[in-house]
Amino acid sequence: MTWTTDNQKNLMLFAGRAHPELAQAVSEELGVHITPQTARDFANGEIFVRFEESVRGSDAFVLQSCPYPMNQWVMETLIMIDALKRGSAKRITAIIPFYPYARQDKKHRGREPISARLIADLFKTAGADRIVTVDLHTDQIQGFFDGPVDHMHAQGQLAEYVRNKYGTDNICVVSPDAGRVKVGEKWADALDGAPMAFVHKTRDPDVPNQIKSNRVVGDVAGKTCVLIDDMIDTGGTIAGAVSVLKDAGAGDVIIATTHGVFSDPAAERLANCGAKEVIATDTLPIPEEKRFENLTVLSIAPLLAQTILEVFKNGSVTSLFDGNA
Amino acid sequence: MTWTTDNQKNLMLFAGRAHPELAQAVSEELGVHITPQTARDFANGEIFVRFEESVRGSDAFVLQSCPYPMNQWVMETLIMIDALKRGSAKRITAIIPFYPYARQDKKHRGREPISARLIADLFKTAGADRIVTVDLHTDQIQGFFDGPVDHMHAQGQLAEYVRNKYGTDNICVVSPDAGRVKVGEKWADALDGAPMAFVHKTRDPDVPNQIKSNRVVGDVAGKTCVLIDDMIDTGGTIAGAVSVLKDAGAGDVIIATTHGVFSDPAAERLANCGAKEVIATDTLPIPEEKRFENLTVLSIAPLLAQTILEVFKNGSVTSLFDGNA
Amino acid sequence: MTWTTDNQKNLMLFAGRAHPELAQAVSEELGVHITPQTARDFANGEIFVRFEESVRGSDAFVLQSCPYPMNQWVMETLIMIDALKRGSAKRITAIIPFYPYARQDKKHRGREPISARLIADLFKTAGADRIVTVDLHTDQIQGFFDGPVDHMHAQGQLAEYVRNKYGTDNICVVSPDAGRVKVGEKWADALDGAPMAFVHKTRDPDVPNQIKSNRVVGDVAGKTCVLIDDMIDTGGTIAGAVSVLKDAGAGDVIIATTHGVFSDPAAERLANCGAKEVIATDTLPIPEEKRFENLTVLSIAPLLAQTILEVFKNGSVTSLFDGNA
Amino acid sequence: MTWTTDNQKNLMLFAGRAHPELAQAVSEELGVHITPQTARDFANGEIFVRFEESVRGSDAFVLQSCPYPMNQWVMETLIMIDALKRGSAKRITAIIPFYPYARQDKKHRGREPISARLIADLFKTAGADRIVTVDLHTDQIQGFFDGPVDHMHAQGQLAEYVRNKYGTDNICVVSPDAGRVKVGEKWADALDGAPMAFVHKTRDPDVPNQIKSNRVVGDVAGKTCVLIDDMIDTGGTIAGAVSVLKDAGAGDVIIATTHGVFSDPAAERLANCGAKEVIATDTLPIPEEKRFENLTVLSIAPLLAQTILEVFKNGSVTSLFDGNA
Amino acid sequence: MTWTTDNQKNLMLFAGRAHPELAQAVSEELGVHITPQTARDFANGEIFVRFEESVRGSDAFVLQSCPYPMNQWVMETLIMIDALKRGSAKRITAIIPFYPYARQDKKHRGREPISARLIADLFKTAGADRIVTVDLHTDQIQGFFDGPVDHMHAQGQLAEYVRNKYGTDNICVVSPDAGRVKVGEKWADALDGAPMAFVHKTRDPDVPNQIKSNRVVGDVAGKTCVLIDDMIDTGGTIAGAVSVLKDAGAGDVIIATTHGVFSDPAAERLANCGAKEVIATDTLPIPEEKRFENLTVLSIAPLLAQTILEVFKNGSVTSLFDGNA
Amino acid sequence: MTWTTDNQKNLMLFAGRAHPELAQAVSEELGVHITPQTARDFANGEIFVRFEESVRGSDAFVLQSCPYPMNQWVMETLIMIDALKRGSAKRITAIIPFYPYARQDKKHRGREPISARLIADLFKTAGADRIVTVDLHTDQIQGFFDGPVDHMHAQGQLAEYVRNKYGTDNICVVSPDAGRVKVGEKWADALDGAPMAFVHKTRDPDVPNQIKSNRVVGDVAGKTCVLIDDMIDTGGTIAGAVSVLKDAGAGDVIIATTHGVFSDPAAERLANCGAKEVIATDTLPIPEEKRFENLTVLSIAPLLAQTILEVFKNGSVTSLFDGNA
Repeated sequence: MTWTTDNQKNLMLFAGRAHPELAQAVSEELGVHITPQTARDFANGEIFVRFEESVRGSDAFVLQSCPYPMNQWVMETLIMIDALKRGSAKRITAIIPFYPYARQDKKHRGREPISARLIADLFKTAGADRIVTVDLHTDQIQGFFDGPVDHMHAQGQLAEYVRNKYGTDNICVVSPDAGRVKVGEKWADALDGAPMAFVHKTRDPDVPNQIKSNRVVGDVAGKTCVLIDDMIDTGGTIAGAVSVLKDAGAGDVIIATTHGVFSDPAAERLANCGAKEVIATDTLPIPEEKRFENLTVLSIAPLLAQTILEVFKNGSVTSLFDGNA
Repeated sequence: MTWTTDNQKNLMLFAGRAHPELAQAVSEELGVHITPQTARDFANGEIFVRFEESVRGSDAFVLQSCPYPMNQWVMETLIMIDALKRGSAKRITAIIPFYPYARQDKKHRGREPISARLIADLFKTAGADRIVTVDLHTDQIQGFFDGPVDHMHAQGQLAEYVRNKYGTDNICVVSPDAGRVKVGEKWADALDGAPMAFVHKTRDPDVPNQIKSNRVVGDVAGKTCVLIDDMIDTGGTIAGAVSVLKDAGAGDVIIATTHGVFSDPAAERLANCGAKEVIATDTLPIPEEKRFENLTVLSIAPLLAQTILEVFKNGSVTSLFDGNA
Repeated sequence: MTWTTDNQKNLMLFAGRAHPELAQAVSEELGVHITPQTARDFANGEIFVRFEESVRGSDAFVLQSCPYPMNQWVMETLIMIDALKRGSAKRITAIIPFYPYARQDKKHRGREPISARLIADLFKTAGADRIVTVDLHTDQIQGFFDGPVDHMHAQGQLAEYVRNKYGTDNICVVSPDAGRVKVGEKWADALDGAPMAFVHKTRDPDVPNQIKSNRVVGDVAGKTCVLIDDMIDTGGTIAGAVSVLKDAGAGDVIIATTHGVFSDPAAERLANCGAKEVIATDTLPIPEEKRFENLTVLSIAPLLAQTILEVFKNGSVTSLFDGNA
Repeated sequence: MTWTTDNQKNLMLFAGRAHPELAQAVSEELGVHITPQTARDFANGEIFVRFEESVRGSDAFVLQSCPYPMNQWVMETLIMIDALKRGSAKRITAIIPFYPYARQDKKHRGREPISARLIADLFKTAGADRIVTVDLHTDQIQGFFDGPVDHMHAQGQLAEYVRNKYGTDNICVVSPDAGRVKVGEKWADALDGAPMAFVHKTRDPDVPNQIKSNRVVGDVAGKTCVLIDDMIDTGGTIAGAVSVLKDAGAGDVIIATTHGVFSDPAAERLANCGAKEVIATDTLPIPEEKRFENLTVLSIAPLLAQTILEVFKNGSVTSLFDGNA
Repeated sequence: MTWTTDNQKNLMLFAGRAHPELAQAVSEELGVHITPQTARDFANGEIFVRFEESVRGSDAFVLQSCPYPMNQWVMETLIMIDALKRGSAKRITAIIPFYPYARQDKKHRGREPISARLIADLFKTAGADRIVTVDLHTDQIQGFFDGPVDHMHAQGQLAEYVRNKYGTDNICVVSPDAGRVKVGEKWADALDGAPMAFVHKTRDPDVPNQIKSNRVVGDVAGKTCVLIDDMIDTGGTIAGAVSVLKDAGAGDVIIATTHGVFSDPAAERLANCGAKEVIATDTLPIPEEKRFENLTVLSIAPLLAQTILEVFKNGSVTSLFDGNA
Repeated sequence: MTWTTDNQKNLMLFAGRAHPELAQAVSEELGVHITPQTARDFANGEIFVRFEESVRGSDAFVLQSCPYPMNQWVMETLIMIDALKRGSAKRITAIIPFYPYARQDKKHRGREPISARLIADLFKTAGADRIVTVDLHTDQIQGFFDGPVDHMHAQGQLAEYVRNKYGTDNICVVSPDAGRVKVGEKWADALDGAPMAFVHKTRDPDVPNQIKSNRVVGDVAGKTCVLIDDMIDTGGTIAGAVSVLKDAGAGDVIIATTHGVFSDPAAERLANCGAKEVIATDTLPIPEEKRFENLTVLSIAPLLAQTILEVFKNGSVTSLFDGNA
């Protein structure tokens, strides 16, 4: 007798505890239930996870958002991946909409870590075969992982929203700092070749890390400014940029960001900074108390669900983004 | 001309932020200052670390205790090690007096992680060449790390204290559960061959994980019982054991443990459980509000300092423990 | 034209030469023939293996028991795995009912190896993707392997046999030493919450490794004692335990073990130690000359066959053991 | 709802730019088109590659011959493999008919590289799961790669051609140097046990690496000599061997080689060395200007196509070569 | 008798063949001779290297510039590192002033390689312990290597030259594209907070990769523009930027770059583009025929020599750059 | 206070139990004692090793010969290396005069292992940093280890002995099979350009692996033949070669080999095969009962001791062999 089986594979969805709403939304979009699990914290902070269904041979997708307290959720993801590896999942994809420690992607000075690379290595060590993430702080982080990284973009969704609501006639795309100008250029293309500007920060040579002045480079007078950033944490930089733009004679200022980290006092700052609207996605949970009147949240869940399906069915992920990686 | 140098090496001590008192004590014992560093938390919980002195070529010892919130301190340690690796430290030793996730050292049921192995791999991935730790939950965890593990024992210190204070004539060594009996045997040897007992827990076959009864196996009537454990977390098990011992006619009960995790409500439970004295070491910080009247804390700092010196000078660590690994 | 195939996989069974009876029994249970191979020893002890059928793309299960001379069989397994890896097997599972060097799972003293971890690394290096094993000496050895370990338990089979033959009314579960008490507790649960006991060995502080006395802790008088151990090698410890139990007034003594290593003079010792019955499984070969009158051998083959099938079909292995890993 | 798919796999063929004729021929034999790609060189020599179809989940075969300038083609292959790995190909097979740096398979003197091993490691690092190659300079190179190497032989094809054209009655198989005698023996077997000879080079002890004399060992007088080598680079050694054979009274000399590297001035040397015919395969491109009158080129494409299909369908590759690896 | 030696280490310098002038200059700065070696190319492009002095135990620094044909020099470096590893060098540092494939540091579209990461992995695989490089295309490439990367900056030298020659009163720092604005900001700080501008390229949505317009963002009228870039390859972008600046009313335009790749027709373009001066370093060889009248070449050799010494003596490299990594 | 030490290193010698005479001889040559250890076999064949002195920071040399039963000694070596790694030796060199499984250095047919590569990987996995070995079966095995291999040659010693005793006037160097002709050429050079011959084996195409005839290729009539081989196992091939040579009219036949494996019935065969003298080294133990009258054993100990010292002192090993690796 010969035992031969069709090597079928089945999609299983796993969710960390950091952002249950997003997991739920993705689950509904996919029509796949979240695998039941026991997950709890020991009194000293140790996390314990056990899955309640067999994961053997599955194509496992582990969805975890990484808001505050980030290290908690990073470790939970690693532990979940370890349990899947030891439980014989066939392939493990970590879906990390907001990549942890993305800002630490290089050494600014000596004796610093490159924590974004460390995070990639930790995922690999735990057993992740692939990473799916959204709008990395810098594209180079793709190269930190030794394996496939499916890099999704929320920019298309955000730009479409802006175009529909504000048109593109009087728009100017503004980067809040020099490092985001490249991304700004993509926005400008998406908004029919809109003009660009950015905020130039000069530093005091006599006081380390002391910003001396903020200057707007580019012409913003009378323009509806779309101020863009990949993430907004406490909102200080972006609120300052609104103020500088207003001083430079800008018209309405719209803020668009993929990752609404919104650590305190971001909500208050953004609500009061003078921006007409703040647009973000739900890659991170934005609880009720952090929401404010002129905040618009677009859901990333449909994009995540589509990506999971393409990965599962060996389709094309980049085709979801016109070929951009 | 030929450049040749004596390949001198120098000891550098680094300390995570979890237990500054212990780091300070070790620094003083060693006579080596803690390398100054910038360490801070971003608003979303990301940790940033930079060392303020060159670490190039150093023999680096990174001391980090891992109390609550444990994941925070694990990540901080990994990030410090990454910074040392990228900063060209010659050798990196992680000194982790309380090994994280030590209780998750095996799969109890299917689809569980083995987080204690994961932790070892994370340290390795970040760049640790060696681990120094104290009284592992199980000795086998030594084998989880692919490199040298210097395993220190506080038991000698604890047993010496018990012997001096209570003598060994009427002593009985008691394990609070079946898994600790092996360690109890070592205690019995250290206390002149004292008799042993343990608490046998039976489970209800009809209700998963339901303890049905606690029975004392061994003769404790009238004895001064030394109830031992490697760690005390919330104190439920150990307080229950005191009660069972008392019911079985035990005399005084002394509790001895290496790692005083003391998560709430441990302090209250231990203070009121009927034990005459609770003895612990300071591998973990025990803040004032968790201390209680009959608690005695022995310092592990001298042992850590001695071990660091032996490692640095290529001496013998096991000689500090009569050859025991 | 497009070449697309259903990615079928087929189960292939390979057997080392250490325990042909077990391989044959598993083969018959599975209904899968053992892949024919050439395996021979060169005059200087080098082993040569070649498979006589194509192994390309197969789900390969390599069954090898590791009796005396153990190193021979360990190397044969590694060589078989290497041949499978280089011959393009899709997945390689090493089925090692008796895990080699399991007793060397930690450093007892300085400058010792942790050979059980080494063994796990050797299997990994050779190319094993997964390990299946039975009743590890300590559960933590699961964590030594960087990949899935399916840990099977013979205890259920053994306990069922005891229950059927001896009932559970007057039973006492006895561990021959302090390290096995935890396993004894599981036996006690399986035998309706039977009482427990263990043999406490005290050491002479003046003579290294010298046992001074053996004391029974727990009440065994008049009880039918089930003396349990994961393995019996030369039988000295276990035979000594029977004697101590008898001295303490025990009734019948039944010995139950998973791994009958039975190195000389185990057979003679066990036959004459006063035990009423010795129960073992056939994870290791027990040749005719090592069998004695009151020895009962239960076959592990059905359990191995079931496990192989569950692994092959991506079923659940832990469900075979009520969820225990 | 449950997402389950048959885990189908599809064969995709990729071709480096070094030898388009061979890629085309293999593509036609297989009936599988070469995946369209963008591949170009930047002005400073950097290579850029992008595939124009989704490669996700594919069983990818990357065919690259490595003629002059070899390093260019090695790097192109590595870059293609990296793109496949990051593009989520399921399995990546590098088909390298002429293995690069095969002559550097050992250290002849101190402080030399073993570049053939380095090449194997580079392929592994880039992401190759398997290597297919033809007639390695030494068989041991198979062992340099940590994974399956399918080693194809052109000797059968070459010997068949010789037998059909020249018969085996008056044949003598000649190795141009001592290192090829083992291969010569296989040729002798393939040609009905033909007698053998080889050219013995003696070195001048006073001048490093200075050949002192070339002597024919074996009887070649009046024989039709088949002079064999795995590769012919500049043709100096082989042309010298023809001359020595002629001096020793040989009849016709036929040269047979798998890899026609044919660096200048090989074509001229071979055309004029006195050999009756030179037979090679097209593992490397042999452009029109390097061809000469008595050169016969046999195509390796059918063998490569068959091998690819056997690998894809999990058939047997060694069966194509009567079991020889 | 006991053999104990002072573990002295000695610095050895090795040089690839790509840029002998730079190697010579570094050798002279250091006062350390270049280790003699045999390095040659086989007719088919294979490289062979052997060192003529024992390298055992040395602290080896391998200097290789990577101009056209780049793959040749990458492979030579890997082979040299392999020879050092196998020849027992104690530590191997690859000094790669111009990091190969730095522009391929991310996937721009699907199914592209990340060749800059691949290069880092190849160096690691060959045996490099550390990389020293100058002005990476993006700082994140530091994180591609799993080990220390000493990242040197030529910007200080270049800016000092500009300041001395042109003053900072009427200066404007200009980035030729959006991706370099961040680097431009550092230049602005180094030039007393000079104002900034950049060239905004818009793309035609109907024609892929078609630049539609180049607009200067920022005020350049009448300013002496310092047009900066990390590397200039064929010079098209930078010459175009000069033209756009001139159209926008800029005064003199000074071009400053670290890496003068200067592939054809860069020399001609730069000479005729209207720039007053072009400043570059000699990280890459700039042969006489590529030099033109207004080209100034600053030597990077002193900086490289200093860095090598700091690395060798376990000093601080970042201190050479005011702490910047 | 700053702790800084001269990073002295000390040589420690460790010896497996396979060949105590050789270890003793090397120890005496070096003037370094063998580190005392406990090494014993458990009843089931498991090996246990513990070192009795601290090994921390040492430059450890582990000498192990691998005679029958080879797997026993391979495992013992791996276990010793593991103990050294975990005991914090600074560097571990495995000295394996006779490389295990060297004959399995390639796949002869499909589905065979490449055990010689496996062995290299096992040493690496256990923790060996470097291998020292003597006269590998094929030089390519050097490339199987990912690290430095110091390859020593006994040929010089053997050839010197032959030259002194037999002169070089009437000598012919003979290889017993086609695979050794290359080595024979080195012997011919060492013996003043002596002529060569080899034994050509033809195979019966109708019976697999059946040798059909043995023919001497080359002129041996009246010559003193030096029949060479790297190892002699059971002696069948070599004794057969003597017989063929005698039939071809050879004069005296001298057999020279590095590795005297001498499995039964080698001693008898060699003693009676008609050879005038058999010369071997003591890389393997040759016990009294395997010695015979015309056997000469040269000691390899001085060469091993010199090599260890060169490695320890960072001298040059290849200089011991005129630069040959």
